[in-house]
Amino acid sequence: MNVTLRGRTAHFRTVTFDERNNSVQLIEQRLLPHEFKIVATPNFRATARAITDMVVRGAGAIGATAAYGLAQGALAFRGRDLKKFSAHVDQVYQTLAGARPTAVDPVNAMNDVRRQMAHGETVAEQQSLALAAAEEFANADVRHCDEIGRHGAKLVRSGMKILTHCNAGWLAFVDLGTATAPMYAAQAQGKEFHVFCDETRPRSQGATLTAWELAQQKISHQIIADNAAGHLMQRGEIDLVIVGSDRVLGRTGEVANKIGTYTKAVLAARHKIPFYVAIPLSTIDWNIKRGFDIPIEERHASEVLGAWGIVGNSKFNQRAYVRVANPTSGARNPGFDVTPAELITGIITPAGIFKPAELWRQRNQLGFGG
Amino acid sequence: MNVTLRGRTAHFRTVTFDERNNSVQLIEQRLLPHEFKIVATPNFRATARAITDMVVRGAGAIGATAAYGLAQGALAFRGRDLKKFSAHVDQVYQTLAGARPTAVDPVNAMNDVRRQMAHGETVAEQQSLALAAAEEFANADVRHCDEIGRHGAKLVRSGMKILTHCNAGWLAFVDLGTATAPMYAAQAQGKEFHVFCDETRPRSQGATLTAWELAQQKISHQIIADNAAGHLMQRGEIDLVIVGSDRVLGRTGEVANKIGTYTKAVLAARHKIPFYVAIPLSTIDWNIKRGFDIPIEERHASEVLGAWGIVGNSKFNQRAYVRVANPTSGARNPGFDVTPAELITGIITPAGIFKPAELWRQRNQLGFGG
Repeated sequence: MNVTLRGRTAHFRTVTFDERNNSVQLIEQRLLPHEFKIVATPNFRATARAITDMVVRGAGAIGATAAYGLAQGALAFRGRDLKKFSAHVDQVYQTLAGARPTAVDPVNAMNDVRRQMAHGETVAEQQSLALAAAEEFANADVRHCDEIGRHGAKLVRSGMKILTHCNAGWLAFVDLGTATAPMYAAQAQGKEFHVFCDETRPRSQGATLTAWELAQQKISHQIIADNAAGHLMQRGEIDLVIVGSDRVLGRTGEVANKIGTYTKAVLAARHKIPFYVAIPLSTIDWNIKRGFDIPIEERHASEVLGAWGIVGNSKFNQRAYVRVANPTSGARNPGFDVTPAELITGIITPAGIFKPAELWRQRNQLGFGG
Repeated sequence: MNVTLRGRTAHFRTVTFDERNNSVQLIEQRLLPHEFKIVATPNFRATARAITDMVVRGAGAIGATAAYGLAQGALAFRGRDLKKFSAHVDQVYQTLAGARPTAVDPVNAMNDVRRQMAHGETVAEQQSLALAAAEEFANADVRHCDEIGRHGAKLVRSGMKILTHCNAGWLAFVDLGTATAPMYAAQAQGKEFHVFCDETRPRSQGATLTAWELAQQKISHQIIADNAAGHLMQRGEIDLVIVGSDRVLGRTGEVANKIGTYTKAVLAARHKIPFYVAIPLSTIDWNIKRGFDIPIEERHASEVLGAWGIVGNSKFNQRAYVRVANPTSGARNPGFDVTPAELITGIITPAGIFKPAELWRQRNQLGFGG
């Protein structure tokens, strides 16, 4: 997507590969929205560390980063001994897979790259195939988001007010994003609309990342407290809700996503406001049988007890943590929740928009088992 | 309620009067939860300023502060000329009434005091009646909260998990509070339960004030992000919701309260969790005909775009504002919302617990027109 720096607008992906320097280039997302900076990881270990340290985050973005990291590691190998090369690639794979142990995207992406590499008969051929496969993974991610945008844009009419939660934007993917893709596509079609970004406590990804993205793309938007959406719906100020998802159950249509998503779905249903979930097909989990069985990560209490931001009088955009809460109180901090299918109007995928219950019936078309 | 300072526990009201020094004593609420301090206002102008500057906030607390402030101003008058005295008292009244122009409680409280003063025939008699009336106003506020607690405690069973939103605690009244009164009464009856405090963005009164209160009273509690309650309800972890209110419509049973209250009521109804609103009778508005007509204050965007807290490495509990959000984005910030009667299980008042629709039928008993 576009980023404007000192008055000049340029196009950036969240993850790219610099072949000449054999480095992965990443938008340093921890500095956003206060500073925009591209960092280059010089070797696969640094790439793994960037995933661990959340320089890059989001399903598609860490998938592509791991794919590029695997190619980067493979390309760094010197020699012609295929056995030694394979052992080296195994080590690269393990390092990158261990960077964010609970994430499934880096592993899936690297498995993709390895399947392609297997067609090469020499080290050089496999190295070349690794890079091509990583590039193809990143391009496919962009293509999927583009298709989500194409289908989803049909839901957006001029004058609409759209609510989104957390960040399922281009920063979470290689480009375009999922929940944001319909907005960017609708904008390209000349539609004018307004977006409310839930701030998305406790980590505030809506107030920081989504709001920054929309500002860069010059889409009319405002941040709201997570408490405010119900009131705005009641007063007729929200026409459409689009969110992303961390996992959609193919068998039931249930949607796991950032904490607070379920609340917005309950409110939308009460007000008969369409509630859509935008995902690539890789987000569909065909195995888990019911949403209650999805493990809900309990995150650190400090996220709820305070906030990260720029200290008011800081000239240097110095980020600081402030403790907001009573210091002798603790917190519960579930990171995700599960929204039942009955509250979801549709799932926007690269293959079209489906009712949650349709996923299972369409499972062959949608890649079940693949 | 009790406050423990350096290991010693003592009882405090939020507002008291120091007759010897003719000063109003207030808990400096802006320092909470990071520091506990009592400030004394030496004259009625300083008392008005404390209301304006939110040293003291909350319906009952500012009502009592204005009542004491009027008595303080009256007592400061020197002389026997009743006409001059009346002109002086008028000035005191206007100053205190203007301290928080949209609040109705200071005006109602002062009207109470003036009605009592009118029974005096000399300056000295009126001065003495003013103080007695202010004391009686404060005592009545405590009595009402105590009665709310007595009725509400019947709803609390041992082992329950209770959700509350914002601060309708003793800090908002002279003592005990409204939403918290049933908890304090149940605790006194030996019941054991757990409270979830919504942090209540954007001003975080739940994370700061309610959590501090509950910690001081040694009630088991945890702070949660406003996004988390829906998930906890879904998993069966909330049994009862009790909130306060800024205005309850006597004609319809609709409840205006801190932004986010409506959302919690919608969630509670979906999960068949009882949702109660605790108020003194003075909170009932018998005039406004429908909730949609209640003016909703749009507050400053900076509240949503950042947070106030203690900087992590500060040794001196230095409060600071951090800007969390993207600096080129704006915010919507409605301060209140309106919950329809159908979502409310009951209204806990000093006169008993009523269904929202019963208020109008019981209006004579509940002081309509009085």
